[in-house]
Amino acid sequence: MEQSFKKITVLGGGTGTFVVLSGLKKYPIDLAAIVTMMDSGGSTGRLRDQLEVLPPGDLRQCLVALSEAPALWRKLFLYRFENGDLQGHNFGNIFLSALEKVSDNYDEVIEMASYVLKTKGQVFPVTYNKTNLCAEYESGAVIKGEGNIDEDNKEKSRIKRAFLEPDVEPCEQSVKRLQESDVIIISPGDLYTSIIPILLVKGIKETIQQSKAKIIYILNLMTKSGQTTGYTALDHIYDLTYYLGKTPDTVIVNNGEIPQNILQWYQSHNERLVKNDLFKSGFKGNIIEEDVVDSSKYIESKADVLTRSILRHSIEKLTLKLFDLIQKYA
Amino acid sequence: MEQSFKKITVLGGGTGTFVVLSGLKKYPIDLAAIVTMMDSGGSTGRLRDQLEVLPPGDLRQCLVALSEAPALWRKLFLYRFENGDLQGHNFGNIFLSALEKVSDNYDEVIEMASYVLKTKGQVFPVTYNKTNLCAEYESGAVIKGEGNIDEDNKEKSRIKRAFLEPDVEPCEQSVKRLQESDVIIISPGDLYTSIIPILLVKGIKETIQQSKAKIIYILNLMTKSGQTTGYTALDHIYDLTYYLGKTPDTVIVNNGEIPQNILQWYQSHNERLVKNDLFKSGFKGNIIEEDVVDSSKYIESKADVLTRSILRHSIEKLTLKLFDLIQKYA
Repeated sequence: MEQSFKKITVLGGGTGTFVVLSGLKKYPIDLAAIVTMMDSGGSTGRLRDQLEVLPPGDLRQCLVALSEAPALWRKLFLYRFENGDLQGHNFGNIFLSALEKVSDNYDEVIEMASYVLKTKGQVFPVTYNKTNLCAEYESGAVIKGEGNIDEDNKEKSRIKRAFLEPDVEPCEQSVKRLQESDVIIISPGDLYTSIIPILLVKGIKETIQQSKAKIIYILNLMTKSGQTTGYTALDHIYDLTYYLGKTPDTVIVNNGEIPQNILQWYQSHNERLVKNDLFKSGFKGNIIEEDVVDSSKYIESKADVLTRSILRHSIEKLTLKLFDLIQKYA
Repeated sequence: MEQSFKKITVLGGGTGTFVVLSGLKKYPIDLAAIVTMMDSGGSTGRLRDQLEVLPPGDLRQCLVALSEAPALWRKLFLYRFENGDLQGHNFGNIFLSALEKVSDNYDEVIEMASYVLKTKGQVFPVTYNKTNLCAEYESGAVIKGEGNIDEDNKEKSRIKRAFLEPDVEPCEQSVKRLQESDVIIISPGDLYTSIIPILLVKGIKETIQQSKAKIIYILNLMTKSGQTTGYTALDHIYDLTYYLGKTPDTVIVNNGEIPQNILQWYQSHNERLVKNDLFKSGFKGNIIEEDVVDSSKYIESKADVLTRSILRHSIEKLTLKLFDLIQKYA
């Protein structure tokens, strides 16, 4: 008898998504990731511009997170060159870019990459089209390019509206997957540069609205300067709901303690704890307050971690809670 | 009952070695390549200098030649980037360099690369140590670095002596393999930059001298400007014998016709047909004159072929003849 696992789909692309996928792959579920494809900063941005390939960075993170290949192989795909012509480039990004150049289509790229990385679960780019994320601020300023929005830009007002230029079609498998999902997990990550870009692709919002899937939103631990400065939990949910087209069914908020020295480091970068103001706000969803933080400064791969990633969700604590919820929902 | 194949070992590194290995892998033999590790030009040279890795280029050529992986995978490993930061770099070279960075030792690099490329047969670097090829000319000039010798340098006199700086130890598996070989094939390739560097590594010459293996030398089709300018077949054998410590048992010389337009192209680069002057020379080995040329300008991978490789040995004709000889010898 064939066992039918529940279809769980994770949206995102960065470090937070890496954490969620790395943990969930160990549970008996049918797991997939739908990945943002609008990154334009760093190594990814340069490859994208110079080689005219799709941005590989977020895709690579998700593929490695789901990989069950030997440790050396995963280490290789996270390796970042430190010198010379290749300085700052990540091997996995180079791999995906070269593979795109020799492949007939992007399905072939994903298929081959998933094969060599022995991924458990599937990875779908939200779109196969090239596009740029743009943000319009309350000041009236418009900034184009994910990298420019993500970098600590000079614009101090709130983002009023995010949009893609040009509008792009979704990857068909992404839409099909959303339609079939039992649970959709919105992973922690930069709200405007990792999460919302997925929801801006044509038809994604409508597909989620019409889907029977329960939606779990994992709230960020800290605000992000230039994107969610001063945001409370409710501010996050308010913006997310606008682009998602519906309210998340469940929100997971960390209440585990974070050491003062880490908070001070963030504060010096104009970033603060996301305050949980949901209980008296009239928010109708399920609010789960739980210790899901890892402040042990654990570093998965030294070469691939920026200084800012010193604080993360705990893979074990977070995904144990997620699996618990999945069982209740599905 | 276990079938015991004859141990055939190919020495070299460049395009000529690629041809020999690509053909021989289809025959029922125990095949291995011992690869020169002194390349210092082009993409390989830059990776070697900038990342302090062993030069990956020749190794990559041999691994791909022996690969039985799907065509897309082999195409990927031969892909050369055409733009941006990665311009001129070959993906396979980048792969081996990154793998060296994350591996504990070079055995692990070879093992992993052979595994993913599904190589038939084994590839052994002649040495795991870093060293430079040097050439002393009859004029007294000394040029250091394989890339500098290989490039059409200004030195017009003959090479008097080639040496390594520093002297390096051989890779143990290479020595063992030479001791056990039934036939050693010296593939076509630049005499002073692809073949002789292998013989300069400590102990290699002595091991070959003491080996019971028959030695087959596949003579180059054309002279190489700055290395073997004006060399006849006998000149090649004279120099090779000096570094090999013994005379080859058999020499394969092409007598197939080469179109005039190709000869003219070479002539304009100061390169000419290698004249066969062996028959009346007193050379005691077996001389095989045969049509083993491919002048159809066949290009295996456009991105990886230099203009100069328009003339090659024919994979089919050459390796059919080699297998015929192997059966007689072994």
